[in-house]
Amino acid sequence: MKIRKIPGGITAAKGFSAANCEAAIKYQNRKDMALVYSDVPCALAGVFTSNKVKAAPVLWDMDIVKNGKPGQAFIVNTGIANAGTGEAGMNLCRQTAAHAAEALGIPADSVLLGSTGVIGPNLPEDRINAGISAMAKTLSASAEAGTAASIAIMTTDTVNKETAVEFDLPAAGGEGTVTVCLGGMSKGSGMIHPNMCTMLACLSTDCAIDRGLLQKALGTVVTDTFNMISVDGDTSTNDTLLVLAGGLAGNRPITEEDESYRLFLEALFTVCRELAIRMAGDGEGATHMIETRVIHADTKENARILARSVVASNLVKAMIYGKDANCGRVLCALGYAGPEFDPAAITIDMVGEKDSLCFYKDGCVQRFDEEKALALLSEHDIHFLCDMNMGDEEATAWGCDLTYDYVKINGDYRT
Amino acid sequence: MKIRKIPGGITAAKGFSAANCEAAIKYQNRKDMALVYSDVPCALAGVFTSNKVKAAPVLWDMDIVKNGKPGQAFIVNTGIANAGTGEAGMNLCRQTAAHAAEALGIPADSVLLGSTGVIGPNLPEDRINAGISAMAKTLSASAEAGTAASIAIMTTDTVNKETAVEFDLPAAGGEGTVTVCLGGMSKGSGMIHPNMCTMLACLSTDCAIDRGLLQKALGTVVTDTFNMISVDGDTSTNDTLLVLAGGLAGNRPITEEDESYRLFLEALFTVCRELAIRMAGDGEGATHMIETRVIHADTKENARILARSVVASNLVKAMIYGKDANCGRVLCALGYAGPEFDPAAITIDMVGEKDSLCFYKDGCVQRFDEEKALALLSEHDIHFLCDMNMGDEEATAWGCDLTYDYVKINGDYRT
Repeated sequence: MKIRKIPGGITAAKGFSAANCEAAIKYQNRKDMALVYSDVPCALAGVFTSNKVKAAPVLWDMDIVKNGKPGQAFIVNTGIANAGTGEAGMNLCRQTAAHAAEALGIPADSVLLGSTGVIGPNLPEDRINAGISAMAKTLSASAEAGTAASIAIMTTDTVNKETAVEFDLPAAGGEGTVTVCLGGMSKGSGMIHPNMCTMLACLSTDCAIDRGLLQKALGTVVTDTFNMISVDGDTSTNDTLLVLAGGLAGNRPITEEDESYRLFLEALFTVCRELAIRMAGDGEGATHMIETRVIHADTKENARILARSVVASNLVKAMIYGKDANCGRVLCALGYAGPEFDPAAITIDMVGEKDSLCFYKDGCVQRFDEEKALALLSEHDIHFLCDMNMGDEEATAWGCDLTYDYVKINGDYRT
Repeated sequence: MKIRKIPGGITAAKGFSAANCEAAIKYQNRKDMALVYSDVPCALAGVFTSNKVKAAPVLWDMDIVKNGKPGQAFIVNTGIANAGTGEAGMNLCRQTAAHAAEALGIPADSVLLGSTGVIGPNLPEDRINAGISAMAKTLSASAEAGTAASIAIMTTDTVNKETAVEFDLPAAGGEGTVTVCLGGMSKGSGMIHPNMCTMLACLSTDCAIDRGLLQKALGTVVTDTFNMISVDGDTSTNDTLLVLAGGLAGNRPITEEDESYRLFLEALFTVCRELAIRMAGDGEGATHMIETRVIHADTKENARILARSVVASNLVKAMIYGKDANCGRVLCALGYAGPEFDPAAITIDMVGEKDSLCFYKDGCVQRFDEEKALALLSEHDIHFLCDMNMGDEEATAWGCDLTYDYVKINGDYRT
């Protein structure tokens, strides 16, 4: 395996440390702030919410990314989003970054910010600053510190999300290879739509890579990972994804789209895909992860739209929870997705670990063995395979089932 | 008032009768079929689902409407959708129409069909035919028969939906005016999205009007009524809206877009708006109707998109149920809707019967009196007024709150 899964998260890569604290911003008696810090200035890339209303920390980070400045720290708070706060919110960002810069001995414009929580209220500057001062003194490069940070950024999440991989790249200025590491953490859960709460994600790597290529790689990877658990446009005011690349691994810096870049891209895809799937599967009380793979679509974008429509469908989600093989709902979700197709030409299968079931072809919902369907619906991961029979493009989307009361109405609709 | 609300529904207009029966198509011991019949052939207009996968009865009706044929009967069944049934489903439509034609003494291609229920299974031809035979013998023009038909087409609906209006038009070939009547019934409820279940609606009028103008009027009115309780493209395989115009009122036939046409258009808008709002408000256990009016938008279509985005937002719906004035969620829903706007230039108000509250302006969520907010959120109908401050276009959308378990998580998110 060129890309190898390893333990750890945000502190897995050389040069990165993390800390967390109880700042009592809104909730009491729980961790509500986290700090990620790099020993060296990092090449920085970011992707942000497409919401027309952007929180102050998003505007702050976008400005740093746009200007091509290096990043060295990322400060996250939960409880209050610092959105809809106008100029006061921007001032708070400036003051927070200045305070962190002093505490950490780095430039203020290398301090990235992320907030999640209620829209409207102003952040309590004193408690934010106290939290930063405390965290600056407790930074640790241990795996435990990384895990603790991934827990501190949780809101409605039921589990923390972190992952890391390593891979080998040619060594800088010499023979042989060095091991490069890429890890990350995220918060957010895909209950009905991902807009149920903000997604914050931070990745760190010791890979040496040109900033422009890092941004290009991130943009490429996001389309088929984080954006495939989302419904287009359905984004919060605060969604933020950052990558910090410190370069301490000692690889020959990636400066063009060569074999090393492609390997980095694959590693980035692996980490983002893992975090995205964990977010998709982390619905409140979710009992299933739902994966929909659309193959033989006419265009890549249509494949994505169709796959997302199935995993975003409340009716499909309810059906999975109710273990009710009312598979016409998958057909219906493809039908209202938008892209043109011939309903008589497509096939839809449910694919399990050892078995599979075709429930739609030749324009007709097929008769199927109810016991076999129930066995497939009893697996934790539910896979739908939709063959559009139009071209060579494919895409995969992820979601989870719905376990709320209204599922009682819809999960039993067919029986 | 030029347009006067009157009692009744589908049988309010001269020449229309209705019947219903227990056909035991899927459910036992409940009405599950309805028949609407006109004494005379009617000018027919229809609007159908935009889903790429269309149920057999939708394809059957579309063909009749497209060919400009008159309509004289509408047969509805619940329990099975006759969708995803291929050629067998189309054959069933042909046989059903032929049987109804014989029972009613009318052409088979004047028999419209509507189905709602599970996608996949075939309809039981014998029970459908037995139901039609029984209903043909019990047709009645009474208001009670109309109400009973509106009850027979219910599925997950909690209340039946019917309404009627009358207005005056110049009499045919002479002095004075005649009273024209337009009524209708619909089924469908807007829980999360209207795609939770099929919308079926049938309107009947004794107005004499050219078929082409009838279709034009219907297309015009649907955009700002039924489509404003829907999220674009989120449609079932079976959505059907039909209007039958028999012409027995004795008005001078409407053949051009004159004053009479505009009055008819206003009546049609009134009836469609009323049915749409009732559908929007009929969520399982809904405790509030939510209306969002967007004013001063740059284009009409953007106004519609923005208004729909607010009423379709699960977070807004949950906030209303929880009576939690977490108004940033309205701002967020405008932001991810798509249209460009300047967050610092818009204002958002909550408008009650006697009071109102501005909760967002100048780029900031405003401080507001929590008691006043609670009083506004305690009214049954919740109105949001969003001023985009960009142009002169406006639109209104309708929805309901969410009362399911997951609301417990999100309705209390802010406190």
